Amino acid sequence: MAEPLNHFTDVGDCSREQLEQLLDLAFSISRDIRAFENTRTGRMLVNLFYEASTRTRVSFEAAAKRLGMHVINVSAIGSSVEKGESLEDTFYTIQAMGPDCIVVRHPEEGNAARLAASAEPGVHVINAGDGTAAHPSQALLDALTLKQAIPDFSEIRLVMAGDIRHSRVARSSIKMLRMLGIGEIRLAGPPEFMPGDGTTEGTTVFNNLDDAVKGANAIMMLRIQKERISGLHIPDAEEYHREWGLNQARLNLATSGCVVLHPGPMNRGVEISSDVADSPQSLIRRQVRNGLHTRMALLLTLTRASA
Amino acid sequence: MAEPLNHFTDVGDCSREQLEQLLDLAFSISRDIRAFENTRTGRMLVNLFYEASTRTRVSFEAAAKRLGMHVINVSAIGSSVEKGESLEDTFYTIQAMGPDCIVVRHPEEGNAARLAASAEPGVHVINAGDGTAAHPSQALLDALTLKQAIPDFSEIRLVMAGDIRHSRVARSSIKMLRMLGIGEIRLAGPPEFMPGDGTTEGTTVFNNLDDAVKGANAIMMLRIQKERISGLHIPDAEEYHREWGLNQARLNLATSGCVVLHPGPMNRGVEISSDVADSPQSLIRRQVRNGLHTRMALLLTLTRASA
Amino acid sequence: MAEPLNHFTDVGDCSREQLEQLLDLAFSISRDIRAFENTRTGRMLVNLFYEASTRTRVSFEAAAKRLGMHVINVSAIGSSVEKGESLEDTFYTIQAMGPDCIVVRHPEEGNAARLAASAEPGVHVINAGDGTAAHPSQALLDALTLKQAIPDFSEIRLVMAGDIRHSRVARSSIKMLRMLGIGEIRLAGPPEFMPGDGTTEGTTVFNNLDDAVKGANAIMMLRIQKERISGLHIPDAEEYHREWGLNQARLNLATSGCVVLHPGPMNRGVEISSDVADSPQSLIRRQVRNGLHTRMALLLTLTRASA
Repeated sequence: MAEPLNHFTDVGDCSREQLEQLLDLAFSISRDIRAFENTRTGRMLVNLFYEASTRTRVSFEAAAKRLGMHVINVSAIGSSVEKGESLEDTFYTIQAMGPDCIVVRHPEEGNAARLAASAEPGVHVINAGDGTAAHPSQALLDALTLKQAIPDFSEIRLVMAGDIRHSRVARSSIKMLRMLGIGEIRLAGPPEFMPGDGTTEGTTVFNNLDDAVKGANAIMMLRIQKERISGLHIPDAEEYHREWGLNQARLNLATSGCVVLHPGPMNRGVEISSDVADSPQSLIRRQVRNGLHTRMALLLTLTRASA
Repeated sequence: MAEPLNHFTDVGDCSREQLEQLLDLAFSISRDIRAFENTRTGRMLVNLFYEASTRTRVSFEAAAKRLGMHVINVSAIGSSVEKGESLEDTFYTIQAMGPDCIVVRHPEEGNAARLAASAEPGVHVINAGDGTAAHPSQALLDALTLKQAIPDFSEIRLVMAGDIRHSRVARSSIKMLRMLGIGEIRLAGPPEFMPGDGTTEGTTVFNNLDDAVKGANAIMMLRIQKERISGLHIPDAEEYHREWGLNQARLNLATSGCVVLHPGPMNRGVEISSDVADSPQSLIRRQVRNGLHTRMALLLTLTRASA
Repeated sequence: MAEPLNHFTDVGDCSREQLEQLLDLAFSISRDIRAFENTRTGRMLVNLFYEASTRTRVSFEAAAKRLGMHVINVSAIGSSVEKGESLEDTFYTIQAMGPDCIVVRHPEEGNAARLAASAEPGVHVINAGDGTAAHPSQALLDALTLKQAIPDFSEIRLVMAGDIRHSRVARSSIKMLRMLGIGEIRLAGPPEFMPGDGTTEGTTVFNNLDDAVKGANAIMMLRIQKERISGLHIPDAEEYHREWGLNQARLNLATSGCVVLHPGPMNRGVEISSDVADSPQSLIRRQVRNGLHTRMALLLTLTRASA
């Protein structure tokens, strides 16, 4: 068994062995979720969200409740906790309630790790997104979904396409998939959406989606925020779809049976066409279910030592 | 025993036999609520609200928690789930959490039924109000409250008064009470508040509240949104109260012991006077308690097959 | 054993004996919280908040959940319950759900007591702040924190400093600490922040913080709302800090080992310096944990009769 995991604020908090154990556990949960219910009765999780995210909040809340945990939701947006109080003081207030896990979403990079560093023993911090830096539990569900389709990571030739620059999902997934030994990662998107930092390391960058897709067996389309299109040399969402969206014709350039992922929420008709989103090749709905399974695995693993 | 009930998006989802069984069960719960507590432990309900409604949300939440169910509240107003994501995609995300029941409130007609049609087996959809079309669980609590006062529906001569046109409560209650064999329904309100659709079928329309009330043994006053008064040929709320509000003098025109209902929240002094709202003839507070009992009955019935 | 406690809307709802029993129970909880978990399983608490307060809401929610109670949060701000509905009608709706405890925060003085007076048997009302009048559960946690540091109340020489006038915390704490036999209370703050009502009774008022601090063995700094500084003859927050803030030099004027309290959230650098807030003499974080312990004690006590 791997080292106990104390926090999960970045993919780098885990060794490869720990990641593989998390995925194995999540896979077991996906096969028989009822066997894991109520195995953490009376434990407590707090969702501390400085940025709205219904999807991620609900996924952690459902995962915790399935395990029998209490859940307290704290939306720190516009609330009294923001009235001049420091992030650490607010965090301490939450910590004083005796939770086992605190899930933090914050618009600024590094804050989940900062809070994890100040956490008391027995309090486990999970990063549910910090700025454009990381969203490691999303990477975990992407990895599980890919593994269910193509069990040997070294055989995966993945295209990740769209707004890589602003995507914490992309950053975390690239890091995790490389740790897990993925065969190949190709990045594709308008030049303005390519990251200037080290994110592209170990990947191949394409400036044309057709070229990137050829020979791929998995494609992950990223959500594009429509207001960002106006910063591109592309006139509108329709033209964006023609150049950078995934439709069935473009998908047909990939290997047959190539699977399609998207972290959601989708802009149908912009980064992805509806026929692709709803095609048998789409694993998008399975990703959502896997979000529940991987988060249950994560909560079980973090609270294992003190179980 | 009646056919199992799968969804409850409209009164028409039920046969008369199913409605009567729901009412019988709700009546039993109203007699001994503790006997029904924790009989659905570990099950999950999601409140998916695209429109604010504290009363209805709290009523479903309390009903579910009394039964031992987990509850997740999702306010889809202004949240990320609305950022261009389709209603079906959001619904799927919720469904992927594995809830037994999803309670949907949406400002547009027909959306709860649309989602019910796409629900997976084992997921039961309840309509908590779709536009001005339906609010069937409110109708159920009205029917229970009336039945407790006048056990034989054929003896009920009910006046429903106020803004029928914009009232989903009125539409659902008329439909349900007619299925249950109510003796008579009289509608009364300003002409602008009379519905143009088939809602008036099987009812008698009065354009004077005094006339409608004569001989009635039950009166249901509807909430009027004050801003709608300005669209009438009535100068203000005081004048509205004089013409269309229920006060004690007007109530005295009905049969002695005539009962009074109101779905809440009440505008005291507009559609109803305080002395009537608080009189012994008022069943308004019992309606609120019955909201809990009927929703417990509904959740028990919908989850029965898989219990 | 003291008389059973039915509501807790003001310090004056309790006898000295009842207060002492509450503190003894909270002290026991602070020593072994796990021994008290799940001792009120299936009971229900509703947080009915007409004013935002994440800290207080979370503290009651965590206390209730630790005891195994269901919790329903109702934010009445901008919600349908406010649409012209009377406070009593909303309260009745909440009460009809069958809660054991209703925690009320309201911007206007006296409303929690008004609702308690209308509550049905078995429904216990807790005031979580009504205007500037009272916040008795905060006073209870302050008393517990002081008692842990200085067990004999008659030996406590407490300075309370800052905006006394607008502080419900100050009002409740002064009342409770005097009932418990505190040795001395000194109030200090700008003249505009001194209360005009009877709050100062039994206290000594200082118009200079240095003088007040000399010989004190406990100092409670109150939160100042920055916008209120503009109403003073003090140009800005920095000058306020120089005149009325607690820094280490000023703290050194007190007895050695003098403890420091603050109800939170703190404005570091305004009413309190960071070195004092984080010093070993600061009990501010213990106050937050004691908030959980005293609220658990309160919920246990209120629901004892019907347990």
